Amino acid sequence: MPPFDVPEGDPFGPHNLPYGVFSPPGSTRPAERRVGVRLGDHVLDAGGAAMALGSPYASLLAHPSLNPLLAAGRTAWSDVRRALTAWVTVPAHQEAIAPFLHPLSSVTLHLPFEVADYVDFYASEHHARNVGQIFRPDAADSLTPNWKHLPIGYHGRAGTVVVSDTDVVRPSGQRKAPADAAPVFGPSVRLDIEAEVGFVVGLPSRQGTPVALGDFRDHVFGLCLLNDWSARDIQAWEYVPLGPFLGKSFATSVSAWITPLDALEDARVAPPERTHELLPYLDDSQDEPGGYDLRISVALNGQVISEPPFSGMYWTAAQQLAHMTVNGASLRTGDLYASGTVSGPELSQRGSLLELTWNGRDPLELPDGKRAFLEDGDVVTLSGWAPGPDGVRVGLGEVRGRIVGG
Amino acid sequence: MPPFDVPEGDPFGPHNLPYGVFSPPGSTRPAERRVGVRLGDHVLDAGGAAMALGSPYASLLAHPSLNPLLAAGRTAWSDVRRALTAWVTVPAHQEAIAPFLHPLSSVTLHLPFEVADYVDFYASEHHARNVGQIFRPDAADSLTPNWKHLPIGYHGRAGTVVVSDTDVVRPSGQRKAPADAAPVFGPSVRLDIEAEVGFVVGLPSRQGTPVALGDFRDHVFGLCLLNDWSARDIQAWEYVPLGPFLGKSFATSVSAWITPLDALEDARVAPPERTHELLPYLDDSQDEPGGYDLRISVALNGQVISEPPFSGMYWTAAQQLAHMTVNGASLRTGDLYASGTVSGPELSQRGSLLELTWNGRDPLELPDGKRAFLEDGDVVTLSGWAPGPDGVRVGLGEVRGRIVGG
Repeated sequence: MPPFDVPEGDPFGPHNLPYGVFSPPGSTRPAERRVGVRLGDHVLDAGGAAMALGSPYASLLAHPSLNPLLAAGRTAWSDVRRALTAWVTVPAHQEAIAPFLHPLSSVTLHLPFEVADYVDFYASEHHARNVGQIFRPDAADSLTPNWKHLPIGYHGRAGTVVVSDTDVVRPSGQRKAPADAAPVFGPSVRLDIEAEVGFVVGLPSRQGTPVALGDFRDHVFGLCLLNDWSARDIQAWEYVPLGPFLGKSFATSVSAWITPLDALEDARVAPPERTHELLPYLDDSQDEPGGYDLRISVALNGQVISEPPFSGMYWTAAQQLAHMTVNGASLRTGDLYASGTVSGPELSQRGSLLELTWNGRDPLELPDGKRAFLEDGDVVTLSGWAPGPDGVRVGLGEVRGRIVGG
Repeated sequence: MPPFDVPEGDPFGPHNLPYGVFSPPGSTRPAERRVGVRLGDHVLDAGGAAMALGSPYASLLAHPSLNPLLAAGRTAWSDVRRALTAWVTVPAHQEAIAPFLHPLSSVTLHLPFEVADYVDFYASEHHARNVGQIFRPDAADSLTPNWKHLPIGYHGRAGTVVVSDTDVVRPSGQRKAPADAAPVFGPSVRLDIEAEVGFVVGLPSRQGTPVALGDFRDHVFGLCLLNDWSARDIQAWEYVPLGPFLGKSFATSVSAWITPLDALEDARVAPPERTHELLPYLDDSQDEPGGYDLRISVALNGQVISEPPFSGMYWTAAQQLAHMTVNGASLRTGDLYASGTVSGPELSQRGSLLELTWNGRDPLELPDGKRAFLEDGDVVTLSGWAPGPDGVRVGLGEVRGRIVGG
């Protein structure tokens, strides 16, 4: 048997060890929340274990948030991960660790870090081309002229980032069909998902000083699946000229588990070939592979509707970080930036209902009826994995959300 | 003599009492920062005074940030203001208060609150029309079709909001002239100001629950002048389709002094007549006046270049708050939202160099030469005032920033 009864090949085995924040059974006070590490279908109380073992990392782990660990930087991240790996794999530790393992089903999971700024990118060429064809059918090129020169992004609302399993209230707002004389107000009738990957910044940077491409792994701690819920009707009416606002700001769901980049070494891949020469601050042609081979699955009420491949994203997370800071904008611990909708070249790989149904023209046929956009009661689940060591999968934490009437 | 030696008619007399955070003389540790209230050319250590007087409000004031006071809500805001007014006007308190008054010139001022989310609106019709004419000269209407139906806004970067007197490093980034085949990279050559007013949220709201127009004063604590520095060349190349990003995110300067809304009762005015019927959640035609008569002055290297009037803003701060939350987006203590550039109908009332020089076509003639956009070493100062009781002005805290080479 593998260590601590995790079945062989479990995607949440000791090769993974994603971080979260949980309340132990029976605890309700926010101050009693603690950093947990997922091991199979259990959660290790990492701070409690560190204290019991007299570990020097207790000061980073015994907190109700990941922020102190995030702020500690790359050397500390590697050291802590090495220590955790030993605790859950070396038989001599088993007795000391056992009291700090809780069944996943017995704990409550929380937003694992304090979100500082939230930025959303637009890094999938397939997604950008689909959106361009749907919304600007007469344009000569489905991509805007800047798309291949810089990773387009914008700031979203950090205060409405919620953890998986938080219900999402259908937003109300203004919408206006082209033929209407004036906008009408009401609950969104074109509520959508966006299957994305979010990157979590640990080490901050100084205002006025850009972060270079090659410093990505010094600043970014890990990643998680992310659903950037979108009200397409609200967005379409509001977004010219200053971009999406209320069509996005009502909720963004993230997984309870942040996978450290150190667990994803075997998933690194080269991004797609660049069709345009890049300015030096974005040119990664001589760098180590900047892409990640993450396989995402989107389920609607339990039925898989799409399997977007992250490996095909045109812009990498390292390029996004370099771009986001090239003007001197500083990073803070807890900054979250997301990839934008992950869509592959195939119909079955599109990461939004907008694309899957071609703006509602081709509704999905589901066991409980047709779907152009989300209905109240719908449950959307993003899950995923990455190739790990020796052919074992590295599981990504799920992001689940249920739509409730507004 | 008026109380505590503040000259009669001083715009920072006891009728004003804006809040800030300062380090007392000789103090450098962040934990020693404290809430201060400006009185003439002095700062009252409000937490220290509250403790010395045995005030129940010490728990809201004895902090290195305004956040606890902000979170306390409207009744507490009024109660604390009443207490402070008594401390600085009732002669019996003078002896107890005196040790807590520091000359403004002897203290260091800090960012007065922890910025949660930062949103920037676009609420001046004159500004929006100028920008439309400059950037979309062929459009039939200089306003986009949505402009009169909703207050257009977008999220900015909260982590780069800085206090007045923080130097601003000239940002670098991509720019591309229409005739160029590809973008070039370098320091912005079209660095601009935006003279704005920022509103500071105190009381939070629940996700999923909109904040009604009439609840504005329960949630918003006060306002301050704000300079939303903008790199026009970076912005022009990046902003389609998702809005401004790096052209704005390098820095936003705010005053060190937050003026409570309670100090601005005499400045309330009706907004301009609405030319379009508004949806009910934005319809303020039956409400108390939602505008504020703030007179702003923009100086470049000491020379006044513009005097934008805030009273002419089409959308009010209450409408912006109602719009920002109508989709269920929650508010957090410390949320900051700004008006967008304040421009009046006259050339001398435009709040950006973009408008003042008509995108550089008509440079300003200054004592030290012509200016189309900002040069390194330039110092921009926003100042302002509002009508107060008995004809006395309510001074707004200055926002000053110097451009340094990138």
